[in-house]
Amino acid sequence: MSDTVKLIKVRENIQADNDALATSLREELKIQKTYLVNLMSSPGAGKTSFLLQTTAALKNDLKMAVVEADIDSSVDAERISSTGIEAIQLQTDGFCHLDVSMVREGLNLLDVDSLDLIFLENVGNLVCPAEFDTGAALNVMILSVPEGDDKPLKYPLMFSTCDVLVVNKIDYLQTPLTDFDIDALRKRVKKLNSGMQIFTVSSKTGDGIDDWAKWLLAKVRHL
Amino acid sequence: MSDTVKLIKVRENIQADNDALATSLREELKIQKTYLVNLMSSPGAGKTSFLLQTTAALKNDLKMAVVEADIDSSVDAERISSTGIEAIQLQTDGFCHLDVSMVREGLNLLDVDSLDLIFLENVGNLVCPAEFDTGAALNVMILSVPEGDDKPLKYPLMFSTCDVLVVNKIDYLQTPLTDFDIDALRKRVKKLNSGMQIFTVSSKTGDGIDDWAKWLLAKVRHL
Repeated sequence: MSDTVKLIKVRENIQADNDALATSLREELKIQKTYLVNLMSSPGAGKTSFLLQTTAALKNDLKMAVVEADIDSSVDAERISSTGIEAIQLQTDGFCHLDVSMVREGLNLLDVDSLDLIFLENVGNLVCPAEFDTGAALNVMILSVPEGDDKPLKYPLMFSTCDVLVVNKIDYLQTPLTDFDIDALRKRVKKLNSGMQIFTVSSKTGDGIDDWAKWLLAKVRHL
Repeated sequence: MSDTVKLIKVRENIQADNDALATSLREELKIQKTYLVNLMSSPGAGKTSFLLQTTAALKNDLKMAVVEADIDSSVDAERISSTGIEAIQLQTDGFCHLDVSMVREGLNLLDVDSLDLIFLENVGNLVCPAEFDTGAALNVMILSVPEGDDKPLKYPLMFSTCDVLVVNKIDYLQTPLTDFDIDALRKRVKKLNSGMQIFTVSSKTGDGIDDWAKWLLAKVRHL
């Protein structure tokens, strides 16, 4: 390679830069006493329904807002704001994950200082969002029962990165349509991330939401 | 910017290069009379189960093999090869999609000339794989009923790129657990991709597999 040609390792620079920006954002939010939660999952695992249940359970205790990220459309933000919770829709225009600069664009449209809890609903994707720190204090992933209990084998980084696993759509366990084995899942998760907190919920029936909401409320109050 | 600093638009170069390689691979495979199908979906939509049903339906008509791509593990390739169909496992080591160079690594381990049909099972992801041509003659996506009928609104590129949509897990339509509206889905798909071929199947019960297998057999024979 000639001396005049400089190689730019774009990906490495982007990630190192993003990590530093994430650390700053996390520190700022801690001073402001605003708890930021990054919610990740496959498409269709039920992130928005889960947020609707969670915000309903906590609405008397906390001031909350939601930053929705999608490649296209604003249907999720519309569902959230119809319940009286402020929601910002970020359209990523093809981007497969959120990074800190995108998160900041969302936060700039909120009165962050007045909020106790902000949820980021990341792009539906079990791969790329796991690689990018958003500045959140807590990383939460949803796995829905119809996706199967083998997902920790295939998407290990997501399971290693997150603090909390929410197993959603547990109402599907009642049908003979699924052979999902929750004990097998727990064993696979434990191997990857022994400290991972696991909640089992149905965002349709509300089953299990109270336990999760109480746990989260304690986290927010101890920020 | 100084004259001595050259900016390398890595992403553009990678994509332009990949497109040219994909076109070459497609031409080579046409001469060899080997039909390559690229199968994409969210994690847990049922790609492997669908391939097991499809290869069982076509095993008396065609010589087939499967190239499995996963970030980690080889459970899918093991499931396929236990049925007597040759399977190669590609581990992408964090990569979120297949590109042509990875596909070639898989094909190099197969006796391509002797095969009528090769399936690529892409990484479970509705975002990134849609951006990378693999050299396949046919792009197929699976959407499973529990993921919901709103996915064309959120992942439009995948629905625009694919030739075929397989709606899987239609056995879930029988339960009151889901409010999936297949007519709403069809309307949303039609807006994005009016020529998209739609099949409805259950890879668990085998429902709908015959129609798809016959359609695919005709495609392979007319290569």
